[in-house]
Amino acid sequence: MKALYFDGQKAVYRTDADRPVPKEGHSLIRVKYANICNTDREILKGYRPDFRGIMGHEFVGEVVESGRKELVGSLVAGELNEGCGTCLYCRTGREKHCLSRRVIGMSVDGCFAEYMTLADHLLHPVPEGLMPEKAVFTEPLAAALEIVRQVKIDPALNAAIIGDGRLAFMIAQVLALTGIRLTVIGRHPEKLRMFEPFADTALSTDYYEGEELKPLTAEECFEYVIDATGNETGLAMAFHLVRKMGTIILKSTYAGQTKVDMSLFPVNEVTLVGSRCGPFEPALKLLKEERVSFPPVEFYELADYEKAFASPAFKAGFRF
Amino acid sequence: MKALYFDGQKAVYRTDADRPVPKEGHSLIRVKYANICNTDREILKGYRPDFRGIMGHEFVGEVVESGRKELVGSLVAGELNEGCGTCLYCRTGREKHCLSRRVIGMSVDGCFAEYMTLADHLLHPVPEGLMPEKAVFTEPLAAALEIVRQVKIDPALNAAIIGDGRLAFMIAQVLALTGIRLTVIGRHPEKLRMFEPFADTALSTDYYEGEELKPLTAEECFEYVIDATGNETGLAMAFHLVRKMGTIILKSTYAGQTKVDMSLFPVNEVTLVGSRCGPFEPALKLLKEERVSFPPVEFYELADYEKAFASPAFKAGFRF
Repeated sequence: MKALYFDGQKAVYRTDADRPVPKEGHSLIRVKYANICNTDREILKGYRPDFRGIMGHEFVGEVVESGRKELVGSLVAGELNEGCGTCLYCRTGREKHCLSRRVIGMSVDGCFAEYMTLADHLLHPVPEGLMPEKAVFTEPLAAALEIVRQVKIDPALNAAIIGDGRLAFMIAQVLALTGIRLTVIGRHPEKLRMFEPFADTALSTDYYEGEELKPLTAEECFEYVIDATGNETGLAMAFHLVRKMGTIILKSTYAGQTKVDMSLFPVNEVTLVGSRCGPFEPALKLLKEERVSFPPVEFYELADYEKAFASPAFKAGFRF
Repeated sequence: MKALYFDGQKAVYRTDADRPVPKEGHSLIRVKYANICNTDREILKGYRPDFRGIMGHEFVGEVVESGRKELVGSLVAGELNEGCGTCLYCRTGREKHCLSRRVIGMSVDGCFAEYMTLADHLLHPVPEGLMPEKAVFTEPLAAALEIVRQVKIDPALNAAIIGDGRLAFMIAQVLALTGIRLTVIGRHPEKLRMFEPFADTALSTDYYEGEELKPLTAEECFEYVIDATGNETGLAMAFHLVRKMGTIILKSTYAGQTKVDMSLFPVNEVTLVGSRCGPFEPALKLLKEERVSFPPVEFYELADYEKAFASPAFKAGFRF
């Protein structure tokens, strides 16, 4: 079968890969669409130096074989983290944090291939009427939904999102559903325009003045500030924008240590919430009901993976 | 009257200070007991370089004059932060975070004096039957209670407190009231013994092994970790001890920037809660009902302030 491998340094396209054989408790899936995540690009830059295998973790596909007989022939989306099933984290709803978890596309074979396998319990049927081209947004949308799962969002308050990329857009779509007054702060006027139907927007230069940050009044600040920049400048700005007793939600992961004045937390009683993968079921429901909408994915043949990885589209992916 | 001033560099004892005259909306209080807080010691080390005035912010006293007539003659404890009363923070229950707040003993005259003034609304009557020698614990106990106000503590889980000093002891007393399994980690065997009636204790060397931290299993970690060390080593240990999706509560304030791997927050979905001053009414109620208990305060004459500041007692204070 066709598959895109990571060989430790670069992506390698193969047409002679073996179709995988599912282990006990695992399903065989014929992949229909698979999207490229920024994490995949990070892997090509060295984010997972020990990983060797088929890349990719955002997909929708048809179940070919499964212990869950009712799923055979159905379209499914699937979670990426498979835990051991027995440790404290697995037993307390934190499978994605299992210390010996297997992660498709990061530690075991992923979805950039015609066929893949996945633990039965990680599969979620795509609801009737939801097109697979849209259902591929389930995983990143679930990550945005993790925020409202972790933090009680009071819709009578206000929120700011720092960043104007894909992650920021998904988070903004989710937060807009609460009715909260939303401001998106970014560096790209053309990207900010996408947010205008449902959020106030601000160019980050309105907030930064050279090296010095202009002090803000309580009224100018936000109860919730979400850092979706992907780099360390986001945190400094989040501290600047958050109200006393407010909440910063950190979605950005980046390598290395940052210098932080930790006393700002107790002195201002600020809460910081780290947020990662989220729940699939509400993501599928919101997609099906069209409560959220994203620009269409640009789909490529797997052989054209270089073009796909270089695409500036909102989302680029593969069609099988 | 007698008063202990901070002159910008050191504490100065005076016997010729003017008795203060309360402004509109403020009460005159005859101080009966006033305790030394670590913050007072920090002020002597330069924590508030611009402050000049009477030190101290933990007190209990008798109301002499007040707009709240019913309080005249009563024993009261009092909060330290007086806000402007009109800004967003003051209007939303966050007076202690008002950007133009006045703080007794830190920006305006405090309680190390025979008489002091305080805004009427910051006074809290000491309940009948609660001795003033115990009521002086109200302010620091309130700061410990702030934790349970900010964070829902699930008593079926577990918690660790890093630190074995006064602040740690007050926090431990408060958390023990939830019924949660509690572990206190400190460096001083003799101080840890105080916690033994209601907490497991561990010498920090059991956790640290030289420079390297021994990796812990989920079972060995804690859902809640409270840093009450007062220095930056606490945070590194808190990260080491907290479970994935757990909560770190940061009580320590210290000068300067700390290097932190901020990606640990999103990757492990850890929440960090900064915590400062807290609610007086539940503190007074718990003291009155003897749900919490602290070693007796060592009281000094104000003239003996040097001895009092040097005292190794759990709490040292002044009797007027």
